[in-house]
Amino acid sequence: MKPRLFTPGPTPVPEETLLELAKPVGYHRSPEAKAILAEVSEDLKYVFQTANPVFTLTSSGTGGMEAAVASALAPGEKVILCTAGRWGERWRGILKAHGANVVAVEVPYGKAVTPDMVQAAVAQHPDARAVFATLSETSTGVGHDLEAFGKIVAKTDALLIVDGISGLGAMECRVDAWHIDVCVTGSQKALMLPPGLAFVSVSEKGWKKIDATPVRAFYFDLRRYRKSLAESDTPFTPANTLIKAQRVSLKQIRAEGIENLWARHAKIAAACRAGVKAMGLEVFAERPNNALTVITVPAGVDGSGTLKKLEKQYGFKLADGQDTLKGKIWRLSHMGYTDAFEVLGAVSALELVLLESGFKLDPGSGVAAFQKAYAGK
Amino acid sequence: MKPRLFTPGPTPVPEETLLELAKPVGYHRSPEAKAILAEVSEDLKYVFQTANPVFTLTSSGTGGMEAAVASALAPGEKVILCTAGRWGERWRGILKAHGANVVAVEVPYGKAVTPDMVQAAVAQHPDARAVFATLSETSTGVGHDLEAFGKIVAKTDALLIVDGISGLGAMECRVDAWHIDVCVTGSQKALMLPPGLAFVSVSEKGWKKIDATPVRAFYFDLRRYRKSLAESDTPFTPANTLIKAQRVSLKQIRAEGIENLWARHAKIAAACRAGVKAMGLEVFAERPNNALTVITVPAGVDGSGTLKKLEKQYGFKLADGQDTLKGKIWRLSHMGYTDAFEVLGAVSALELVLLESGFKLDPGSGVAAFQKAYAGK
Repeated sequence: MKPRLFTPGPTPVPEETLLELAKPVGYHRSPEAKAILAEVSEDLKYVFQTANPVFTLTSSGTGGMEAAVASALAPGEKVILCTAGRWGERWRGILKAHGANVVAVEVPYGKAVTPDMVQAAVAQHPDARAVFATLSETSTGVGHDLEAFGKIVAKTDALLIVDGISGLGAMECRVDAWHIDVCVTGSQKALMLPPGLAFVSVSEKGWKKIDATPVRAFYFDLRRYRKSLAESDTPFTPANTLIKAQRVSLKQIRAEGIENLWARHAKIAAACRAGVKAMGLEVFAERPNNALTVITVPAGVDGSGTLKKLEKQYGFKLADGQDTLKGKIWRLSHMGYTDAFEVLGAVSALELVLLESGFKLDPGSGVAAFQKAYAGK
Repeated sequence: MKPRLFTPGPTPVPEETLLELAKPVGYHRSPEAKAILAEVSEDLKYVFQTANPVFTLTSSGTGGMEAAVASALAPGEKVILCTAGRWGERWRGILKAHGANVVAVEVPYGKAVTPDMVQAAVAQHPDARAVFATLSETSTGVGHDLEAFGKIVAKTDALLIVDGISGLGAMECRVDAWHIDVCVTGSQKALMLPPGLAFVSVSEKGWKKIDATPVRAFYFDLRRYRKSLAESDTPFTPANTLIKAQRVSLKQIRAEGIENLWARHAKIAAACRAGVKAMGLEVFAERPNNALTVITVPAGVDGSGTLKKLEKQYGFKLADGQDTLKGKIWRLSHMGYTDAFEVLGAVSALELVLLESGFKLDPGSGVAAFQKAYAGK
């Protein structure tokens, strides 16, 4: 049986990228290594749609998020936190560890924070130094309207600091045009690499705040990365084989074109949602994003058991809900190196397992609706 | 020309480990992934010679060092810093960023901090909360007598916190028997993996201090790793392909046996030093360690130029000195997946390049002395 990875990180890695990882290891301070880092950094600017440098940290995405908090905030400073799920709560955890004064704009899981809420919060808290938001709230499948958030926050002195970990590269996100001051992503989502690298961009407005903030970190002090990257280098020994392999995946992204890539994800996501709905299931997110489809487990169906069957019988590995959502949702990623035919396969496998467990659906309804939507009919 | 990596990190990675890195990526929260982490953690306990859990962080070694500082110290607390080079200074940089009150025990580059100095420092500063030390000071080739340091610090309330990044697995280091409270290492040295993972052990005494210290970090809060590892898990998405590959390299270490591994490194290091001296060169470190040999560039020889020639003409990549030692020393690693015959080759190549540049030496003197020492004659 072929194993198929549909978790919203890690995601499948292209074969050429995997082969790159098997090559002998080199010295990370050589001219060759610096040239590779420079090339990767340029390609990341393209993916981020920013003219500012993008820094490479060896850490999970959370490390990149902590670098943003530790570099940009002094203890006690007020921030607005937009939270719509587990990853909004990740911001809260980091902010709390760093002594921030958090004003939370919260919505229930499955809902999205709206631009109106952000507008009201910045009006009520003109002393907020930053607004923290999440591009793709992977725990619920919600996507946020960061373009609108950006317009609002740009008019204030606050920074817009975004967790773009599971959305960047899968859904439209224009860091500069949308006024995102600090944007964080990770290697193991739409960037088609194993986990291990985080990438962070900082705007001019962001640097002004960072440079005026006392140093409180070492490894996560973004100033160190700025200084090193000016010489195409990293401040600490990086996961250099991952960087070399990231180059290969980034070349694929450049070859496809970022707008084509967004369009591909949008088309697959729309087809997936159509297939899911045609099977009589519901999409959990009120404002679904194109990185993944989150499906509400229907009444009477064993959520976690269904996922186990999907993996055991057909090789499809989807992700369960986290924490309180465990057993209540299914999370199906279509990020990165996953095409329409593979997602069609996942819809097919889900149909089969649901039929076997006695759930009433018209066999073929899901895949037919997927196909129809994908064909644009 | 065959490229040969002799830098003191990254070091060569076994072919079987590289191939593991090219395998498809899996989900990091699966039972299989947890079983792998559990196995790696067990094997790391063996390498560390500790009965305590060893935590896996996705970061460079410096990240592991910062986890020790951020978890174990509150701002303003007094610490004793033993520093004999750049990596001792790395501790200082992290300690400074975290507001520690640093009492430095310093020696010039090339010298070692002695147990007597540590004894005097703890006697003079009974209020010190920790002693920071370096197992292998890779910037100079010095090794520290941590067994003696441990005996001294164990009698106090202070913790012994050790950067074992470039020595652990290459030279004798018995974490529990030597009373090392926090020990940090990295994947890219004697553990035969590319860079990207840091490993940290904590003693019972260490946990007492950490649990009594306010939380000031998130990603580097060791408490989170303790909680997750109790369930064979990691608190954040780990570089799971590196962990899987680390398992392969750790199996090689277990198969060889840690004491045999220390003996192998000791034998190769002794032969290398004999070869170097027979060529009329000097070993830079007064107390050389077995992870690498650091050679003083002789008067009249272009240090950096010689390294460039070694790489360009013969494929041998050694490391230059760092900062003020650039051009003044050559650093030749014999850590990890490097055997006597390869180090012999490096000695041969160095002889050739020195002869070509007009340095006076008896051709064959270096390799003959290496061979004689290695044969135990």
